[in-house]
Amino acid sequence: MMVANGARPRARDIGIDIGILKPGRWNAITDVRGVKVGHVTLVEGEGRLIPGRGPVRTGVTMILPHDGNLFWEKVPAAAYVLNGFGKSIGLHQVNELGNLETPIALTNTLNAPLAADALIEWSIGHNPQIGIGTGTVNPVVGEVNDGSLNDIQGRHVRKEHALEAIAIATAGAVEEGSVGAGTGSVCMGWKGGIGTSSRVLPPKRGGYTVGVLVQTNFGGVLTVNGAPVGRELGRYAGSRDFPYEIPEDGSVMVVVATDAPLDHKQLERLAKRVGLGLARTGFYSSNGSGDFFIAFSTARRIPHDSPLTLKTEVVSNDAMSPLFLAVVEATEEAVINSMLKATTVTGRDGRTVDAIDIDQLLVVMRKYNALNWSKALPPWGVTE
Amino acid sequence: MMVANGARPRARDIGIDIGILKPGRWNAITDVRGVKVGHVTLVEGEGRLIPGRGPVRTGVTMILPHDGNLFWEKVPAAAYVLNGFGKSIGLHQVNELGNLETPIALTNTLNAPLAADALIEWSIGHNPQIGIGTGTVNPVVGEVNDGSLNDIQGRHVRKEHALEAIAIATAGAVEEGSVGAGTGSVCMGWKGGIGTSSRVLPPKRGGYTVGVLVQTNFGGVLTVNGAPVGRELGRYAGSRDFPYEIPEDGSVMVVVATDAPLDHKQLERLAKRVGLGLARTGFYSSNGSGDFFIAFSTARRIPHDSPLTLKTEVVSNDAMSPLFLAVVEATEEAVINSMLKATTVTGRDGRTVDAIDIDQLLVVMRKYNALNWSKALPPWGVTE
Amino acid sequence: MMVANGARPRARDIGIDIGILKPGRWNAITDVRGVKVGHVTLVEGEGRLIPGRGPVRTGVTMILPHDGNLFWEKVPAAAYVLNGFGKSIGLHQVNELGNLETPIALTNTLNAPLAADALIEWSIGHNPQIGIGTGTVNPVVGEVNDGSLNDIQGRHVRKEHALEAIAIATAGAVEEGSVGAGTGSVCMGWKGGIGTSSRVLPPKRGGYTVGVLVQTNFGGVLTVNGAPVGRELGRYAGSRDFPYEIPEDGSVMVVVATDAPLDHKQLERLAKRVGLGLARTGFYSSNGSGDFFIAFSTARRIPHDSPLTLKTEVVSNDAMSPLFLAVVEATEEAVINSMLKATTVTGRDGRTVDAIDIDQLLVVMRKYNALNWSKALPPWGVTE
Amino acid sequence: MMVANGARPRARDIGIDIGILKPGRWNAITDVRGVKVGHVTLVEGEGRLIPGRGPVRTGVTMILPHDGNLFWEKVPAAAYVLNGFGKSIGLHQVNELGNLETPIALTNTLNAPLAADALIEWSIGHNPQIGIGTGTVNPVVGEVNDGSLNDIQGRHVRKEHALEAIAIATAGAVEEGSVGAGTGSVCMGWKGGIGTSSRVLPPKRGGYTVGVLVQTNFGGVLTVNGAPVGRELGRYAGSRDFPYEIPEDGSVMVVVATDAPLDHKQLERLAKRVGLGLARTGFYSSNGSGDFFIAFSTARRIPHDSPLTLKTEVVSNDAMSPLFLAVVEATEEAVINSMLKATTVTGRDGRTVDAIDIDQLLVVMRKYNALNWSKALPPWGVTE
Repeated sequence: MMVANGARPRARDIGIDIGILKPGRWNAITDVRGVKVGHVTLVEGEGRLIPGRGPVRTGVTMILPHDGNLFWEKVPAAAYVLNGFGKSIGLHQVNELGNLETPIALTNTLNAPLAADALIEWSIGHNPQIGIGTGTVNPVVGEVNDGSLNDIQGRHVRKEHALEAIAIATAGAVEEGSVGAGTGSVCMGWKGGIGTSSRVLPPKRGGYTVGVLVQTNFGGVLTVNGAPVGRELGRYAGSRDFPYEIPEDGSVMVVVATDAPLDHKQLERLAKRVGLGLARTGFYSSNGSGDFFIAFSTARRIPHDSPLTLKTEVVSNDAMSPLFLAVVEATEEAVINSMLKATTVTGRDGRTVDAIDIDQLLVVMRKYNALNWSKALPPWGVTE
Repeated sequence: MMVANGARPRARDIGIDIGILKPGRWNAITDVRGVKVGHVTLVEGEGRLIPGRGPVRTGVTMILPHDGNLFWEKVPAAAYVLNGFGKSIGLHQVNELGNLETPIALTNTLNAPLAADALIEWSIGHNPQIGIGTGTVNPVVGEVNDGSLNDIQGRHVRKEHALEAIAIATAGAVEEGSVGAGTGSVCMGWKGGIGTSSRVLPPKRGGYTVGVLVQTNFGGVLTVNGAPVGRELGRYAGSRDFPYEIPEDGSVMVVVATDAPLDHKQLERLAKRVGLGLARTGFYSSNGSGDFFIAFSTARRIPHDSPLTLKTEVVSNDAMSPLFLAVVEATEEAVINSMLKATTVTGRDGRTVDAIDIDQLLVVMRKYNALNWSKALPPWGVTE
Repeated sequence: MMVANGARPRARDIGIDIGILKPGRWNAITDVRGVKVGHVTLVEGEGRLIPGRGPVRTGVTMILPHDGNLFWEKVPAAAYVLNGFGKSIGLHQVNELGNLETPIALTNTLNAPLAADALIEWSIGHNPQIGIGTGTVNPVVGEVNDGSLNDIQGRHVRKEHALEAIAIATAGAVEEGSVGAGTGSVCMGWKGGIGTSSRVLPPKRGGYTVGVLVQTNFGGVLTVNGAPVGRELGRYAGSRDFPYEIPEDGSVMVVVATDAPLDHKQLERLAKRVGLGLARTGFYSSNGSGDFFIAFSTARRIPHDSPLTLKTEVVSNDAMSPLFLAVVEATEEAVINSMLKATTVTGRDGRTVDAIDIDQLLVVMRKYNALNWSKALPPWGVTE
Repeated sequence: MMVANGARPRARDIGIDIGILKPGRWNAITDVRGVKVGHVTLVEGEGRLIPGRGPVRTGVTMILPHDGNLFWEKVPAAAYVLNGFGKSIGLHQVNELGNLETPIALTNTLNAPLAADALIEWSIGHNPQIGIGTGTVNPVVGEVNDGSLNDIQGRHVRKEHALEAIAIATAGAVEEGSVGAGTGSVCMGWKGGIGTSSRVLPPKRGGYTVGVLVQTNFGGVLTVNGAPVGRELGRYAGSRDFPYEIPEDGSVMVVVATDAPLDHKQLERLAKRVGLGLARTGFYSSNGSGDFFIAFSTARRIPHDSPLTLKTEVVSNDAMSPLFLAVVEATEEAVINSMLKATTVTGRDGRTVDAIDIDQLLVVMRKYNALNWSKALPPWGVTE
């Protein structure tokens, strides 16, 4: 059902070098020091859908802001909802208190509550006083609907899967494509999935790193670095009552991490820029799209038991623009990575969603001269 | 552990007649035709807290906007968050699409995800195409932290309890106090719980009914119809480093129902007035308070499969003010009802939270001449 | 037309001692060190309204966060809109950047743009590089409709009046009642106006000061420290189609100042509590009410030309609750002060709006035992 | 100083045919029946800036939703703020009441208050009861900072200019480029200005028209239909401490009109999609950008004096997606039109901002094969 994606390239591997800022070492959200990502991928069964049984094409992805006790040492965070047709959990408290106190779980729509429950369990395990000698905990979950491939009614992501995804989370290279919470997702007519990218600001701009991780399941007509790939490859079909049948359904979850010292309002401003990066890939935030974006900073930790006041440091507003640009660029590239690394998946009722064909893609990219811009375009100022 | 609350009065039974508008027949959210409420109350064990085992002092309350298939026939709805230190689920979609498609579940904080999962199960049971032939479903859950009496880590509200609360939901009189989701809640130093009240507008103002149901677990210094009850009865203790120790913790969930034909924005405006009613009882929305308010209208049903356009009718903005006043008054009275009907509960580690003493309360109310205002104050215009 | 209000008492002068926290020295917004207030009151002409000519019953009130160059040294600020039926200016930028860079002007509705233009002029005068060598400036204006007494079409507040109100602004005692922007306002059927109050937290809670200034012009049925004054004094009339004719119209502007070190989100949380204080006076945020609240902190200044990062200090979330209570109490008391200090005004077309009769008020207050609570109620913990 | 722009092409004239939906007859906001646009362009003086004197390079643009009495017959409307570093006026009331009751004025930043005052004057002129026998009026103004070319301190847009722009507003073709409120604006390093575009949905999708008008003054690196024009044409300079000097400053105002019957929430959703269209042109919503978007519907009129309820019709949520796509496409094209039609302007201190060179642009467009997509790409379903 699933094909190894090791052979498939990331965007930069084939000359799709988006934007003008430089990526970090891994070109991943894990370039923000301390951030870890873990996937558990669930693939079982084939053929006809038997609700509650399978086939299973889903999973869970966990993003950890740091290695410590997150409940005890929270990180500044904010969430922004571009289109709220979705079932994310935990964002109200993130936005009221300006912090995040659990890993962020990504999964399928109907599994969101059980993933939240697993985060509660995990948090209690590490903080036995939760709900007894101190307050409760706020689990944060994002989701997309993978029901076109997956037996989503089955809610196959169990507690043990969520806990395992945390346990195996690692720094460094991040697996992308049809893995974890991206196992069954579909993006603009092709297989979507998990993607990531990062940007590092020049030293004079603070030298901060911004990392983005996306779970792509949204509608639109694919544009890659400006090239009209969706239109060229005819990724539309059927009814013809619209100019062509634009895949409308789906959602997108995006997590932004940074080591820049930002407060809640500034992180919300970062999260608001995610949509601008998505827009460059063909996204238009259709009615059915649940578009939820969460941003956190690793620059400081907020103790659960705080003194009266906390000393802190924040980037000045005037210095925010390069961070915004970094979010936009990394988001765009993360989407493309999610689709390039995704592999073809056949799921419920024998339905197959193709990964985008790399050779076909490259033909289009060349036709529109959309490759190797960092080499092809005139040089500009040194970034170091 | 629990005492029958049949003997305890509601506010109006003892002359606490709040506001100037008239209540409906039941003085309850169920005065809005079609609305049903069901409680499942869980009380088990005594003595020392053994996390995961008990004692159990919690429950679940379900509010159903109508008897039909809610997923298939949604109702207009909106949510407003006054203070987001809480774990409510499902409000983003309510506010994006302006509708509600499941019953509203109220429960304890750590049980919110499992209650949401139960609502998914219930919805699938009635709509087997969810996630298969149509979209997913958006469960809506509110919660408060009842951990001072209840083994909240145990998440004792199971799927069967949630489903039962829906199954037994009824119109007519609503049980109040230490029941359902109010079993373990604490309000301004006394036992809180579930309370309800309603208002009916004069015919010239549309004759609409507004019903409110509250789950009270919040901090403050109790004021009853203007009388400083908290201060008189010394509902404070200990540390003395603050003027007196104001109970700060807790949250409040409020559901507003109306048969007035309102759109999303207007329902949001209704929900925003809930805080004003709470404020009259001593509430000040402390840092730790999760204050989530949901309003829905039963005046029309929105089909899941909609045609291109929908004909509708809405109250004009100029006619909204009496509805706002109705929300404020009914909220204030519902809080008082929740505390009057609540019974003393002894829970984990032998902790007891007293119900407010009715006789003591009446002494204070008389001292401040705060009873029977509808008779004692000069008459005013006829309301029919 | 106007009577000196020196003889009229403030709330505490006659035993109306609202809440449990202590006021500051002046019981005014100016208890926050550095804050200044200036009024220019415009009263001209009598008799029949001639639009554009008079009678004039209006003015402008300016609140200055500090004495320095506000554009060059901004203060952290946030705004919250409870009901947006109003024409306030400048709040979007306050909420995006989290700062305030001009005095806050209060005036009448149709004068808001000209007051904003005056603030631009004043800012340019002190910062000739505005719009030339640096960015533009964001004037902040609040307003209420004083058209029932004033020739509001005339926009009689001219640039010189606005500039004079800044020039004469002072610390210390604040003139209240029918002055400045409160000259022509009407509140719950009586004459409203400018009112102010403050609270000082106990040292263990940070010892911070919170000051509130209100411009009252709103509808509702007056409640004073819990006593049903509006109902007792029959402040209703006529149509009788509603239970009684509740004055619905009007608006309320509220400015909150504090020396607590708060960031944008925290100041927004403060501003959100203003409505809770208003609610205790009979306010229910009617449809026609423009309810705009602005909070700022004097604890630090944000340089217009900022370095890459700024060091700062913020109150921890857990320490916010007493600040919230302070806002609620000071707001309630400021409203009562605005009505007590207001004097009867006769304006356009010979219309008279009475100040509340102090003797009648005291009769009601005694009937409801609503005086001298700080002495009459049991003592509690020391606040020093 | 100013060159006639008649000779300069619009995007489609030179083969830049953005998107997949069809434009309306005028490819302008005026394709929404009843909408009119009027510009007054102010160009006076040359040479050294003398604040208050000149040179003047500014203007005002008025958008009228219909020809009738707007105060008496309001239109449904909503506003969305992507980045609030701006001085727009009137949006709070638009979002509270969901309607628009004046023309929308666009002008320069420091002129926003005076433009609002002019709208008040105009409204009173047509409705002498404003502020006397009925409520006040809510003027709506958007603005950008044209101070790099214009003596913005001078606030040269006077009342008569604003009134004239309303008086001369017309349906049909809309003048674009360096006119009206776009006279002095700068966009991504070139001359910006006013631009417009429209889209018409296929009949099966409702056949609705969506029109967009932009006032472009924002930062970013220009992308045209996917081609990296800014990078190719070296529209950057100097400091080199950033990858290259990205023009960061500026703002963008966008007005969306439609004849689709939409309620406030739906219009807000439309306004939220504007940013996605902007993003495709190189926009990333920098810190200094005031990004304010207003959407209105001409499908119904809301009477100032409303009965208790209003009958209405709204598009179902499921039918919203094509409207969203229309907003995105028309916004992108309107931005390109604003830059193509703009002419080179020399303003204060002899500063010149060049219009983009059409020939150079076409060279780049051909290099990236970004022309004539509607012909060059495979055909798709019929849109009629």
